[in-house]
Amino acid sequence: MTGIIGGKNPSQQALDAAYQVGMLLSKKGMTIICGGLGGVMEAAARGASSVGGTVIGVLPSADLSTANPYITHAIATGFGDARNLIIINTATAFIAIDGEYGTLSEIAFALSRGKKVIGLHTKWDIEGVISAESPEDAVAKLFSD
Amino acid sequence: MTGIIGGKNPSQQALDAAYQVGMLLSKKGMTIICGGLGGVMEAAARGASSVGGTVIGVLPSADLSTANPYITHAIATGFGDARNLIIINTATAFIAIDGEYGTLSEIAFALSRGKKVIGLHTKWDIEGVISAESPEDAVAKLFSD
Amino acid sequence: MTGIIGGKNPSQQALDAAYQVGMLLSKKGMTIICGGLGGVMEAAARGASSVGGTVIGVLPSADLSTANPYITHAIATGFGDARNLIIINTATAFIAIDGEYGTLSEIAFALSRGKKVIGLHTKWDIEGVISAESPEDAVAKLFSD
Amino acid sequence: MTGIIGGKNPSQQALDAAYQVGMLLSKKGMTIICGGLGGVMEAAARGASSVGGTVIGVLPSADLSTANPYITHAIATGFGDARNLIIINTATAFIAIDGEYGTLSEIAFALSRGKKVIGLHTKWDIEGVISAESPEDAVAKLFSD
Repeated sequence: MTGIIGGKNPSQQALDAAYQVGMLLSKKGMTIICGGLGGVMEAAARGASSVGGTVIGVLPSADLSTANPYITHAIATGFGDARNLIIINTATAFIAIDGEYGTLSEIAFALSRGKKVIGLHTKWDIEGVISAESPEDAVAKLFSD
Repeated sequence: MTGIIGGKNPSQQALDAAYQVGMLLSKKGMTIICGGLGGVMEAAARGASSVGGTVIGVLPSADLSTANPYITHAIATGFGDARNLIIINTATAFIAIDGEYGTLSEIAFALSRGKKVIGLHTKWDIEGVISAESPEDAVAKLFSD
Repeated sequence: MTGIIGGKNPSQQALDAAYQVGMLLSKKGMTIICGGLGGVMEAAARGASSVGGTVIGVLPSADLSTANPYITHAIATGFGDARNLIIINTATAFIAIDGEYGTLSEIAFALSRGKKVIGLHTKWDIEGVISAESPEDAVAKLFSD
Repeated sequence: MTGIIGGKNPSQQALDAAYQVGMLLSKKGMTIICGGLGGVMEAAARGASSVGGTVIGVLPSADLSTANPYITHAIATGFGDARNLIIINTATAFIAIDGEYGTLSEIAFALSRGKKVIGLHTKWDIEGVISAESPEDAVAKLFSD
């Protein structure tokens, strides 16, 4: 699985990028895992859904109705923000789009696990993050060695 | 989703029942969620897999390779036994097969959430658990009002 | 540490017993761990506090202000009911007072860990629970081999 | 409570700083919360212990024996690295010493909660982290408005 992480209140540019990333990953047959809520998470799921992709949404609350409508399988953790670690532990690589401190926390945790992180329209230019210019570039760098 | 919970070291009768329950639920188009490891979890996933069903396995460790081979989507939580609560929070109803104290803990937590629990070949005859005589009976009682 | 587990809406008898248990354990120099909220948890902490005992309250929310006023050290988990497992993993033995399905879930999880559970004014007469007649009896049975 | 976060394999300079920070905070009567293991966590606990301070150690495993010997109250979570969020949710402010990606993840999560983070001998010069020159400076900045 590929993880898509990012902000709840992104720019339109980030939303468009998330939609494209979701669509491109799904076309390659990749299952997506994300936090299941709005913003980047919903845009990516909508993009995946548009081409019949599978998206697992790992929700912070125990309430399944909080999932955005494009999630294939919603997981209601009840663990709050600790659900982020489930996403990081489950996916083998990540595309980080936009995002504030919460996204930085996820990026850092993924890097601490030695996992690949591609950054797209994100201000977190941390050592270890691979910068991408576009959704196409992000997906290409995800699959490159 | 329906949760299947149960022991890691069940009797052959319980394994056969879990296989049948997995198969019957999948034939009805129900996605299954379980703990992703061996015993009842593996037998149910194998039954589901035999008819092309979807099984989400919520693992205790952060290591995806611990999932049994019949899991469609493995979720690596890294949360140990606390992953049981994710299964309980996510499924709307449960079939409990066999099981020791760990299964009782899950049954009780599901009942505390007001969720339906069907018991099959289980010694936990707790108030609130609906007893079933066979895999077919368990699935029938799951779908009845 | 000793864990005190029990209901949020107990009878007066259970509240009185929890207060006594908290006081008796503290007099023996035992640190108490509980869920940090109301009912049995608050009564036990109040009993401990009355004799200068130490009580660690492991809260479900990330909000420290939800702790009852008798907690010495409040731990804000943000993990919801999964915080129960922290109490079970941390204490070496438990006194369960009153309680509904949530308490049964904790009792079962403690027994699955091979830990001693004393039951006082509780309806959960599960195999493995040691029944006590009074707060004094519960504390005596906690310390006996 | 004040949280002390930092690396498992710090430099001698960082260890000395952690010891001093632990001692200085304890002298001010502040309870410390940390991850309970070695490196910065142990040095800070040892410094606190040297002046009779109280240190709560929130362990990743369910095994109390993994705590370093200077912890006053060890909490065995069994939640792996997710225990970091408990530390962040519980303390009102943090001193981050040394540390790799794991520490960055904690810093970012603390900042996402709007909490104060003082950085000492750490390479994570993230917007929002208040830089300190010495243990004394770190503690002074912790208590300043």
